Amino acid sequence: MAIIVGGPASNNIDSKLAEMLNIPCVKLEHKIFPDGESYIRFPETEKIMGNDVIIVQSLYSPQDKHIFELLLAIDAAKDFGAKNIIVVAPYLAYSRQDRRFLEGEPISVKTLLKLIKHSGAEYFITVDIHKEYSLEHFGRNAYNVTAMEEIAKHIRENIELRNAIVLAPDKGALSHAMKVAEVLGGIEYDYLEKKRDPITGEIKVKPKELPVKEREVIIVDDIISTGGTIALAAKSVREQGARKVIVGCTHALLVGNAREKLRKAKIDYIVATDTVPSEYSKVSVAPPIAKVLKNILKF
Amino acid sequence: MAIIVGGPASNNIDSKLAEMLNIPCVKLEHKIFPDGESYIRFPETEKIMGNDVIIVQSLYSPQDKHIFELLLAIDAAKDFGAKNIIVVAPYLAYSRQDRRFLEGEPISVKTLLKLIKHSGAEYFITVDIHKEYSLEHFGRNAYNVTAMEEIAKHIRENIELRNAIVLAPDKGALSHAMKVAEVLGGIEYDYLEKKRDPITGEIKVKPKELPVKEREVIIVDDIISTGGTIALAAKSVREQGARKVIVGCTHALLVGNAREKLRKAKIDYIVATDTVPSEYSKVSVAPPIAKVLKNILKF
Repeated sequence: MAIIVGGPASNNIDSKLAEMLNIPCVKLEHKIFPDGESYIRFPETEKIMGNDVIIVQSLYSPQDKHIFELLLAIDAAKDFGAKNIIVVAPYLAYSRQDRRFLEGEPISVKTLLKLIKHSGAEYFITVDIHKEYSLEHFGRNAYNVTAMEEIAKHIRENIELRNAIVLAPDKGALSHAMKVAEVLGGIEYDYLEKKRDPITGEIKVKPKELPVKEREVIIVDDIISTGGTIALAAKSVREQGARKVIVGCTHALLVGNAREKLRKAKIDYIVATDTVPSEYSKVSVAPPIAKVLKNILKF
Repeated sequence: MAIIVGGPASNNIDSKLAEMLNIPCVKLEHKIFPDGESYIRFPETEKIMGNDVIIVQSLYSPQDKHIFELLLAIDAAKDFGAKNIIVVAPYLAYSRQDRRFLEGEPISVKTLLKLIKHSGAEYFITVDIHKEYSLEHFGRNAYNVTAMEEIAKHIRENIELRNAIVLAPDKGALSHAMKVAEVLGGIEYDYLEKKRDPITGEIKVKPKELPVKEREVIIVDDIISTGGTIALAAKSVREQGARKVIVGCTHALLVGNAREKLRKAKIDYIVATDTVPSEYSKVSVAPPIAKVLKNILKF
């Protein structure tokens, strides 16, 4: 038997998965002590013993707290006799520190994935990880699923598209644009080139000659953090005559004054997922995660 | 060779240890990204390769952030070729969740100590851990040092003691009282009994017949958290006629309105250590830690 365990940062993805897989779901009791320490508790340990335990905890801010709560839950689930522990971390913190950009740096995503593994997780699932190769630090049984299909379907159902084009704000996000374009019926897709001004240091989107005039432009990316990249891209295509600017992203972190930047960029529609709670969380990543879980659990 | 590496929460204990042991000290570069993720960096990795590396990071609030920074530092030090990694965590977070008080709880201090060990630490040193038996979760090479000698010496040097008595606010802290009494020349020591009122649920210090009248009463404990226990103890001995009330504790967490409670309790003098930064951090725990490090490093 398998059971879903929802952590304090599961953002209701736990319940959705339980419903899709038709298995039970328990929510960890949770509080924070006056000194700031986290407390979790499994409500029914007899449901853990001998079963496959799927722990759902998204690692958005405060990420270190959510990480430690996850590690507490894994360790305790092992103590209570869990068979296989499957960790579902829809948003994986520290995934952008995926290599040593400067000598002396840690590879933070490696440290984190190894902690999760060595705490006792046999399987790991995340969504639109910044760089897929980072999963090698977990070893076998690590899965990355994409939310781009769900995002594309949502856009198709909510926006009238006459002659749309999908753009990645940089080359690194091109695979996301490709996926969205495919779901939207094999429409055109491309990417914008970022360029740093050699004198001022300012980052500019250097528009290639993009055929965006009078078209709906769908800009897609994995993360909106401070909103700078997306705002710049939106501004650029708007100036080139786009009819509508639509933004789709998986993880809407929206740090600092991101909301203000997005508002000023006059984007017509923004859609993000529930990996990070925000006002743009309009689609759930539960369906693609459920698909992988079915395979793992041999349903 | 050995080197001290000071983490973002080393509170200058790193420099003091380096001076006492006459070994080099590097401080980790540190910043927090706009989204809340921690960044650390070793400034000189060539000093890590082949050497014993002593990482100093105290785990006070925000404890989960300080924990993850420590785990990043351990993992990176291993990558850079550290020989033995010795972790000095003067304040050990989660040390009060040392057993399952209710079924379904994690043993958080176990989880934390295992994470530190499995990340690559060969040795672990902390100060006045809440329960000494918790160190067994680290296994061999875990050391607990007491700050009570330093606290006693500080009190002796700063307060005129005519006829002092040392009191623990509960039986669990009696060993601390014993140690302080010993350093103060084998003076009298005892403990107060806490009792919960069976009707109101209020916790009261039930004074045994304590000979505190016209004497200096030194109340010692490992942690001042919300300040409730200490304030109650101070009030009780004051009511019984104590001439002066002096409080000595290792870890002054001072959460919530602890400062107000302490002020209202009219304590004459408070001394704490530098395991947690506070206005009461008047003595350093570096000397007893240095002693253990000398043994480990065979100086």
